[in-house]
Amino acid sequence: MSDDDTVTVAHGAGTGKTRAFLEDSVVSRFAQNGAGDDLAVGLDALDDGAVHEIDDRSVVVTTDSHVVSPLSFPGGDIGRLAVAGTVNDLAVMGATEPLSLTCSLIVEAGTSVELLEDILDSMEATCEAAGCAITTGDTKVMGSGEVDGVVINTTGVGVIPQGAHVPDAGLSPGDKLVLSGAVGDHGITLLAEREGFDIDGELRSDVAPVNDAVAAALDAGTITAMKDPTRGGLATALNEMATKGAAGIVVDEPAVPVHDAVSAAGELLGIDPFDVANEGEVVFGVDAADADAVVDALQATSVGADAAVIGEVTDEHTGRVVLDTGFGRRYLSEPEGEQLPRIC
Amino acid sequence: MSDDDTVTVAHGAGTGKTRAFLEDSVVSRFAQNGAGDDLAVGLDALDDGAVHEIDDRSVVVTTDSHVVSPLSFPGGDIGRLAVAGTVNDLAVMGATEPLSLTCSLIVEAGTSVELLEDILDSMEATCEAAGCAITTGDTKVMGSGEVDGVVINTTGVGVIPQGAHVPDAGLSPGDKLVLSGAVGDHGITLLAEREGFDIDGELRSDVAPVNDAVAAALDAGTITAMKDPTRGGLATALNEMATKGAAGIVVDEPAVPVHDAVSAAGELLGIDPFDVANEGEVVFGVDAADADAVVDALQATSVGADAAVIGEVTDEHTGRVVLDTGFGRRYLSEPEGEQLPRIC
Repeated sequence: MSDDDTVTVAHGAGTGKTRAFLEDSVVSRFAQNGAGDDLAVGLDALDDGAVHEIDDRSVVVTTDSHVVSPLSFPGGDIGRLAVAGTVNDLAVMGATEPLSLTCSLIVEAGTSVELLEDILDSMEATCEAAGCAITTGDTKVMGSGEVDGVVINTTGVGVIPQGAHVPDAGLSPGDKLVLSGAVGDHGITLLAEREGFDIDGELRSDVAPVNDAVAAALDAGTITAMKDPTRGGLATALNEMATKGAAGIVVDEPAVPVHDAVSAAGELLGIDPFDVANEGEVVFGVDAADADAVVDALQATSVGADAAVIGEVTDEHTGRVVLDTGFGRRYLSEPEGEQLPRIC
Repeated sequence: MSDDDTVTVAHGAGTGKTRAFLEDSVVSRFAQNGAGDDLAVGLDALDDGAVHEIDDRSVVVTTDSHVVSPLSFPGGDIGRLAVAGTVNDLAVMGATEPLSLTCSLIVEAGTSVELLEDILDSMEATCEAAGCAITTGDTKVMGSGEVDGVVINTTGVGVIPQGAHVPDAGLSPGDKLVLSGAVGDHGITLLAEREGFDIDGELRSDVAPVNDAVAAALDAGTITAMKDPTRGGLATALNEMATKGAAGIVVDEPAVPVHDAVSAAGELLGIDPFDVANEGEVVFGVDAADADAVVDALQATSVGADAAVIGEVTDEHTGRVVLDTGFGRRYLSEPEGEQLPRIC
């Protein structure tokens, strides 16, 4: 079979190839007319979750299966990742107080119970940090060699006032782009861990719940769009926001915080920190008048010390992201089919 | 390490060993106080889902990861199973009109795109039959040998009037037990398929959405408890209902419908059809005065032709299930740690 006939690792990398695959082979197969009540954001939006309107409320639903390898890494583990990942997807839809989190475990036979319990304890600690709870679940065991280690699906439900959700697609020319913190930490840390090197122990995943930071940002100003730059990194998130918002984005590259160890490791690995997953960051479109207030509010939160304005939305370059390096300008493309499996 | 130190296939079989493992190593680790609003049914209930109360509504949430092998089998495939399994868990909580279904795919690299698309088409067809839609999802790819084939998590959300949920635990002495159809078809079909035999092609999984049948039953009479007898079969479902309801159950064994081919294959396999998963059945506790009406209503639905009263609830034998064979009585135990992996 040709490469196009089989699913490859690139189909799951969260980049352009993934989106084409999802649109052609997955999303197009599912009609939306059977959804209950009014569907404000459905599958075809390819947003971070769905939004269903009921009376004066909106029910936000988001799901992620976590397949990260190794199970534990500097800064976190699959348990923290599974809870933070879903809390964060709810948060960037506008649901900063999760109603319900589910935990569906698939465990390889032969896994130590102690390891599993450590992962679950990490999930619970992360739930406590995010102010939420796992209220239902499922546990399956597959044979040794049928699944590698532990896989965790978490699905989140939030209920917010109707109309309070914030889509990916809401950018308008003149908006400022605000980033909650440094990029590249999670992806570069995972890749360095797999390659067996660390630079003076400074690499550390950013995995954390950001719902409090998002709530602070929503309180501080008008947020027009939000996205957490996970698989495919900041480059993919910005390109999606530009495409969906039919707007152009100009990024001031020197303003984007990147930790020194991440830059150094990225060069060694040949990976751009803009292209890899973050698990504790949010990129906001913000009404220009509110940008400084949003940055100030973010900086007062536990995850937002490095928050900064990183660019703005223009009425040129529609659907594209322009990177202003300080020496010149070039388009920032999303990575195509990068081979970064099991990063989250 | 001893058997107790590692997770084994028996931990995932959905039987007594599973429940002990879930209670000791999983559920006990998760506090419920972070759940949004009022939690009417939480993780510790080990019910088919969670129920959150908001204003005058209840939000029902349920999740299942589906790891069935083989991916396709007589009567269905993993796609139909994934949708029906979650629709049915919502239904037996009282949410017969799903608001939202999620689809989280984990695909082994090298899987044919055509096979995956066939599975997704089956999911969509089952959604149409159940009157629901997949409104958000996630797709991950794991390497060849890191996961076997395709694994699908589906999570369901339903919104119902507050207080309309039906727990596992609601049985009272005098209630009749009504079963929607024959038992054992799914589990015996899967096991026979793996062993490479079929009896005149008559074995066929019962996998189907039962939400319309549950709605018909709820309309026809007072339902005190509901459960779908999946992993661990009818024996496990009845024992759980007896334990949780602090009631005794007497089952009239000859009244329990079992297809002839299932009985025959069960004898060949050495497996009791009462002990294996069903994927299109529901067992109801019903106010005695309404039992006939509920059976009539079920028989008028597509999945309920064989619906029958199969027993009653007593104030003796608290927490136990008594099987009346017609020749004598014995306790019906739930299977302990049966080696029936990847049945659903």
